[in-house]
Amino acid sequence: MRIAIVGTLDTKGEEIRYLRELVQRRGHHPLVIDIGLLGPTPFPPDIPRQEVLRKAGVELKSLLEKGEEGEAAERMAEGLAILLRELQQEGKIDGVLAIGGGMGSAMVARGLQKLPVGFPKVLVSTKVAQAGAGAYVGTRDVVVIPSVADIQGLNRLTRKVLGNAVGAICGMVEAIAQGPEAGRPAITMSMLGTTTQCGLRLKEELEAKGYEVVVFHALGVGGRAMEEFLQEEGAEAVVELAVNEIGNYLFGGLASAGPRRMEVAGELGIPQIVTPGNADFINFLSPDTVPERYRNRRIHRHNPQATTVRLEAEEMELLGRTIAQKLNRS
Amino acid sequence: MRIAIVGTLDTKGEEIRYLRELVQRRGHHPLVIDIGLLGPTPFPPDIPRQEVLRKAGVELKSLLEKGEEGEAAERMAEGLAILLRELQQEGKIDGVLAIGGGMGSAMVARGLQKLPVGFPKVLVSTKVAQAGAGAYVGTRDVVVIPSVADIQGLNRLTRKVLGNAVGAICGMVEAIAQGPEAGRPAITMSMLGTTTQCGLRLKEELEAKGYEVVVFHALGVGGRAMEEFLQEEGAEAVVELAVNEIGNYLFGGLASAGPRRMEVAGELGIPQIVTPGNADFINFLSPDTVPERYRNRRIHRHNPQATTVRLEAEEMELLGRTIAQKLNRS
Repeated sequence: MRIAIVGTLDTKGEEIRYLRELVQRRGHHPLVIDIGLLGPTPFPPDIPRQEVLRKAGVELKSLLEKGEEGEAAERMAEGLAILLRELQQEGKIDGVLAIGGGMGSAMVARGLQKLPVGFPKVLVSTKVAQAGAGAYVGTRDVVVIPSVADIQGLNRLTRKVLGNAVGAICGMVEAIAQGPEAGRPAITMSMLGTTTQCGLRLKEELEAKGYEVVVFHALGVGGRAMEEFLQEEGAEAVVELAVNEIGNYLFGGLASAGPRRMEVAGELGIPQIVTPGNADFINFLSPDTVPERYRNRRIHRHNPQATTVRLEAEEMELLGRTIAQKLNRS
Repeated sequence: MRIAIVGTLDTKGEEIRYLRELVQRRGHHPLVIDIGLLGPTPFPPDIPRQEVLRKAGVELKSLLEKGEEGEAAERMAEGLAILLRELQQEGKIDGVLAIGGGMGSAMVARGLQKLPVGFPKVLVSTKVAQAGAGAYVGTRDVVVIPSVADIQGLNRLTRKVLGNAVGAICGMVEAIAQGPEAGRPAITMSMLGTTTQCGLRLKEELEAKGYEVVVFHALGVGGRAMEEFLQEEGAEAVVELAVNEIGNYLFGGLASAGPRRMEVAGELGIPQIVTPGNADFINFLSPDTVPERYRNRRIHRHNPQATTVRLEAEEMELLGRTIAQKLNRS
């Protein structure tokens, strides 16, 4: 199987060489992609940085002459995203293994998030333990491995972590090689807390009728992932048991799934059942993440990292109108 | 190889059964550990919940009779941590694969963080994309896989993600089976931003003399990981090129490595070179994470997620005294 290895060859050349060697030793084919900006590369990559940048329509030389390093990093991330998606769609790679510090992780993460769910993608990063993984994984199944020590050369710690990363990506592409199982027609379902019992009951009935039910947890990322799933894979029907993400978008809660939530099914003509499940609140994390303006509301502390704020009548009216507008367009 | 599969069998029985089947299909031996609290299990686990709880010195029945579900979850996490560590130390498992929602992820994460760096540990979680991975990985190399869809039954999305998770853990234990490489004597080094050039130069010289240099990024998790490394594996010497984590602890910055930072080497009698590298600032994330009381200071915006605040003369004096106290105890 072919595994893309992505990183900045100027600063992480030794580590990338080691990853390449381990991938080969395991019988797979590495494809080294350089996204370094400045220094020389210790060995020639399979796809050089100039070629990555050219995917974004720019020339490295002219960018660096302008002294626009931030701009160059931005364009490199853009070019990498295009390149990885092309390589995946053309069947030229079976998985991606990326390593990065703060800057590098952010650059590769954009590309990894464009690859389909199930396509093996691993990011070894110095930053996830500190800054959290949310920004790196987006709505996708990016496998995140904290580097523990800094990625500065090979030593007993980095060798273990990099060795495990190679084990993980190789194990994943080998699993994919076994092939997927046959599918049944899919129905997607949003669900959250108070509507879980209802959803599980419905799921059971639908499965008994031969459907496959894909459940999304309506906390922002879940709703976004559901819309993307509908866009990319489609479904026989959609059941909405949680509309709180729309309220979160309208009123500044933390579980927003963006302005396009509950629009894809209508656009594609997929039948929908929409209930007012979880319409009456918006979500925050710990109590101190609740904005000042909501502190006099009815607040429910679900657990230390989940606080909900009750909406008022006018807000629920606006929520209802917003949902009606979305559905009327379908 | 033997792979522990950990999760709540009452709510995630179908998924755990699937993981067990895939692990077996790949030629490894699953060991199912149940950490469910309430409902019945769809099949008997290898290690039942009662046995896990007993590791924490409590009986499930008496806890549930008291209606103490939160307490039960707490003790289950404690018992699991003891159990996993025992199984690992006795060589009875070669890796751990855990799945969990919000509650389950938090419960297993505590146990995973007690396992040594390099020991394969994978967590499939519904929560990482929303809440961030920091809380789950701690200072360890816990491999985190976002579930994308909710973990509610098997469907085309969860099958892909769970299949990849099995691929990852199997690939990792197989890689470990190839055995580690021979080591050189180790020197640990803290480093951050402005001292990187100095550190890299020193690292080169030390490596030329036959040492292995393990670098830690002094942003809180890095310092804690270095102290743990010294405690567990020891080292020939320690080079401190970044003492900002101590200032962060004293003055409320976000890159604190706790009160024990820079104490292990002294206790163990490991030689140290300590420089005042990065002594003059403390760290925050985005500019709005800088507390009110520091907003009139000299502030440097390093990047959108890294803001540093300059310490004042008296603060640096206290920092110096604190470091001197720590070193005088060695």
